[in-house]
Amino acid sequence: MSAGPVGVVSTPQTAGGKVVALETYDVRFPTSVTRLGSDAMNPSPDYAVAYVILRTDAGDGFSGHGYAFTIGAGNDVQVAAVRALEPYVVGVDVEGLCADLGGFSRRLVGESPLRWLGPEKGVMHMAIGAVVNAAWDLASKRAGKPLWQYLSELSPGEVIALADFRYLEDAISPTEAIEILEAVMPGRAERTSLLMERGYPAYTTAPGWLGYSDEKLALLCEEAVESGFKQVKIKVGGDLVDDLRRCRLVRDILGPEVALAVDANQVWDVPTAIRWIRALEQFDLAWVEEPTNPDDILGLAAIRRDVFPVPIATGENVANRVIFKQLLQAKALDVMQIDACRVAGVNENIINLLLAAKFGVRVCPHAGGVGLCEAVQHIAMFDFVSVSASMVGRQIEWIDNLHEHFVNPAQVVAGHYRLPTTPGASTEMRGESIIEYAFPHGPAWQASERTRA
Amino acid sequence: MSAGPVGVVSTPQTAGGKVVALETYDVRFPTSVTRLGSDAMNPSPDYAVAYVILRTDAGDGFSGHGYAFTIGAGNDVQVAAVRALEPYVVGVDVEGLCADLGGFSRRLVGESPLRWLGPEKGVMHMAIGAVVNAAWDLASKRAGKPLWQYLSELSPGEVIALADFRYLEDAISPTEAIEILEAVMPGRAERTSLLMERGYPAYTTAPGWLGYSDEKLALLCEEAVESGFKQVKIKVGGDLVDDLRRCRLVRDILGPEVALAVDANQVWDVPTAIRWIRALEQFDLAWVEEPTNPDDILGLAAIRRDVFPVPIATGENVANRVIFKQLLQAKALDVMQIDACRVAGVNENIINLLLAAKFGVRVCPHAGGVGLCEAVQHIAMFDFVSVSASMVGRQIEWIDNLHEHFVNPAQVVAGHYRLPTTPGASTEMRGESIIEYAFPHGPAWQASERTRA
Repeated sequence: MSAGPVGVVSTPQTAGGKVVALETYDVRFPTSVTRLGSDAMNPSPDYAVAYVILRTDAGDGFSGHGYAFTIGAGNDVQVAAVRALEPYVVGVDVEGLCADLGGFSRRLVGESPLRWLGPEKGVMHMAIGAVVNAAWDLASKRAGKPLWQYLSELSPGEVIALADFRYLEDAISPTEAIEILEAVMPGRAERTSLLMERGYPAYTTAPGWLGYSDEKLALLCEEAVESGFKQVKIKVGGDLVDDLRRCRLVRDILGPEVALAVDANQVWDVPTAIRWIRALEQFDLAWVEEPTNPDDILGLAAIRRDVFPVPIATGENVANRVIFKQLLQAKALDVMQIDACRVAGVNENIINLLLAAKFGVRVCPHAGGVGLCEAVQHIAMFDFVSVSASMVGRQIEWIDNLHEHFVNPAQVVAGHYRLPTTPGASTEMRGESIIEYAFPHGPAWQASERTRA
Repeated sequence: MSAGPVGVVSTPQTAGGKVVALETYDVRFPTSVTRLGSDAMNPSPDYAVAYVILRTDAGDGFSGHGYAFTIGAGNDVQVAAVRALEPYVVGVDVEGLCADLGGFSRRLVGESPLRWLGPEKGVMHMAIGAVVNAAWDLASKRAGKPLWQYLSELSPGEVIALADFRYLEDAISPTEAIEILEAVMPGRAERTSLLMERGYPAYTTAPGWLGYSDEKLALLCEEAVESGFKQVKIKVGGDLVDDLRRCRLVRDILGPEVALAVDANQVWDVPTAIRWIRALEQFDLAWVEEPTNPDDILGLAAIRRDVFPVPIATGENVANRVIFKQLLQAKALDVMQIDACRVAGVNENIINLLLAAKFGVRVCPHAGGVGLCEAVQHIAMFDFVSVSASMVGRQIEWIDNLHEHFVNPAQVVAGHYRLPTTPGASTEMRGESIIEYAFPHGPAWQASERTRA
C-alpha cells in the first residue's frame, strides 16, 4: 500500500467563489461488442454515464465530478435530468455549498416539481445523485482529503446533519444514529491504520457474465483464485440446466474455501425464485442476489424465509432509503448492496449505512459498471472507520474494466481495494476519455459504427 | 345523458400503414399564479404535460394522443424520456400494434437499457405510460369506440393478454384473473346501460387547495354541495391548527350526508401521520390520502392498523403494480387510487384493477392535473362494466380545470362523470392549446413573463 500520510497530497484551499457552470456529457462505451456485463435481464449493455462537472470561479483549480451510470439507450434522458438541475446549482456559493452538503442534498431531493418526477426514484433521483456526488468531489478536493477520510473525520453530529431522516422516524431516529456513531468513535484511528495497511476486501464478478462460454468462465475463475479473491459471483437465471452446469464448474475450480455468490438480476417471480434457489443451494452459495423485483419487499422477505439459510442480497436497484428501511424492517435481506449512483448520492448512502448498522445487516456495495468501484469504495471505507466498524463478511464488488478512464482509478491488489489517497471522490474521468467516448459523435463511436456496418 | 347507441359515432377504419412519427410537446399552464393545485408538498405547481402524438400513414386520419402529467420544472426531462421511445415505436405496423397492445406494452417496459432507468418507475416509466396511452387512443379511434367501451367488449382472455403478470404470481395468476372476469360477464350489458343512464360518481377536490383562504374554501364547498357532489376532499398537513379549523368549517357546510376526505400529500412520517389523523378523525373522514411516502408499504400498513377505522387511501404516486401488489398484501390501504399517467398506461392499470378485485379493495381513481380526468374515466368505467362490477364506495376525483383544452373534455353533471361517447381515449388536446401553452415560447408564457416581470 501507499506509504506516507493520507490527506496532505495537496494544500487545502478555501477560496470563495460561486458555482459558475454545470457541464454535462453523454459518455458511452461499446461494451455490448464483448458481452461484458451481460446477465439474464440485460443481454447486451453499452455501459454509459451521464457525466457532470461543477465548475467554480473560486480560483483554486478544483472542479466537482460525478455521474449517473446507465447501460446505453436512454443515457440522453439521464443527461437531460442532470441538466435540469442547473438552476438549483449554478450561482450557489461554493463555501456555503461545501459547508452544508446536507442542506444542499435535501433541497434538491425536496424540490417539489422535480420530486413529482419520482418521487425520489428513477431518472431524476439518479440525476440528483450525480450532482450531489460531484459536490462531494469538489468539497473533498478543496479540503485536500480523499472522500473516505473527509467523511471519517466528521463528528457524529456533523454526520447526522448530512443525512435525511425524513420518513425514517419509525426505524431510526437521529438520537439513535448519534449513539451508533459515538459507540465506535474510540477505534477510528486504529481502523484507519488497518485500512491503510490491508485495504478493503473485494470480490470479483468479472468471470461470470451470462454471455461468456464455459471455457472463458473457467479460465477467468482460475485467474480470480490466483489473484487472491475470496469470493466470485456469477450470473444465473437464464436457464436452470445451464446454471447447474456453470455452478458445478465454478465450484470445482474455486474449491471449498472460496465463496460463490450468484446473481439473478430480478428475472424470477417469487415462486420461481424459491424453486430455482433450492436447486442451486447445493453449491454452498454465499448469497443469491436480486432474486426478484427490487421493489418487492414482501416478495423478497417471503423468498428469504423459504430458502433459509441461503443469504439474500439486493440493493443496486433499490431506489431510495424508504425501500431500504422496509427491506430491513421486513427481514428481507442478509446483505445490503448499496450503489453509489442509484440513490441521491453520498448523503442518502450515509443514511443507508446508518439503517444497516441499526438493523445489524452487513453492507457489500454493488460496483462495476463505469466508475461505480471508484465512487463506492469511499462509502464502504467510511462505513468501516466510522459507522459499522466491521469488515466481517463485507466486501466491495470488483470488475476490472473501464478503470483506465479515471484520473485516480480504484485499485485492487491481492483481492483488496487499496485505500485512495488522492483528494476527492475518485469520480473524475480523464478528459481524453470523455472526448473519445462522447455519444454519438466521439471517435470511438464513429469507429464502432464502422466496425458494425 | 347522451342518448343514442354508443360506438357508432364513426365508421371503424382498419387501413394498414405504419407509425411514421412520434411527436412530442412541452405544454405547461401557469397555474401557480392562482395557487390552484397547492398542497402541503407542492406549494406552487405549474400543471404541465409531456405530450405525445403518434402519427401514421394509414390514411384513415387517426392519430394517437397521450401524455405524462408533471407540475412544471422538469417537464422537459419528461419530454426527453418520451422522445427516447421513438426508435421502439416509429416504423411499427399499425394493425399489428393495435392488435397486440399487450405485447407492445410489455416490450417497452421490458426493454433492458430503458428498464435500467427505473426499473419500472419514475420518468421513464411515465414516458412509457404516455406512449402506451397514445397507442390506446389510436386503437380505439380506429375501432370507432370510446376506450371504455373498446375495453369492456373484450373477452376475459383478451383482457388477460393485455396485462403483465410479471412479479405478481404470488398474488394473482392469469387463471384467477380469468375467473374474476368471467364471473361478471353476465351483467355487462346491464351495467353499460346503467352507466349510460347515470354516469359514474365523482367527488371534488376543487375547494380544498392549501393556498386558498377560508372564505374561498367555504364558498367553493357550498357550490360543491349545490352541484350535487356527495364527497369533497381538502388538503391538510401544513399546520394542525389550520387543519382543525378548516375541517370544522368544511364539515359544517357539508352537513352529515356529504363525505369529507383529506389529503396530506406525503408530508408526514409514520408517527406524525398517526398523531395527526387521530386529531382529525372527529370530522368523520371518508379517507386520509397519502399520509406518508407512497413507497412505504409497511409504514402505510402500520398507520392503517393504528388509526382504524379511518380509511387509508394512496396510489397517485405509486410507481407500479409491484408496489400496489404489496399494498394489498400488507393490508395497507382501503382505497386504491390508480392514476392514468403515473404507471405504464392502460395496460398496467388493467392489472392494477385485477389486483384490486382479487383483494376486494375499491378503486377511486386520482384525477385533476391536466387531462387526468379525461384519461382515467375510461379505466373506471371499464372496471365497473367488466372487472369489479361495483360502484359502491367508488368515485373518480374531479377538478373542473383545464378541460377546455381537450377536444372531448370529460364532463361532470350532478356529481357524475358522463359516459364518453366519442371514439378514442379522450386524451386529444386541442391544437390551439398546444401552441398557446408551448413552453417556453408559446404566447401564454410570453404573456405570463410580462405579467410577472
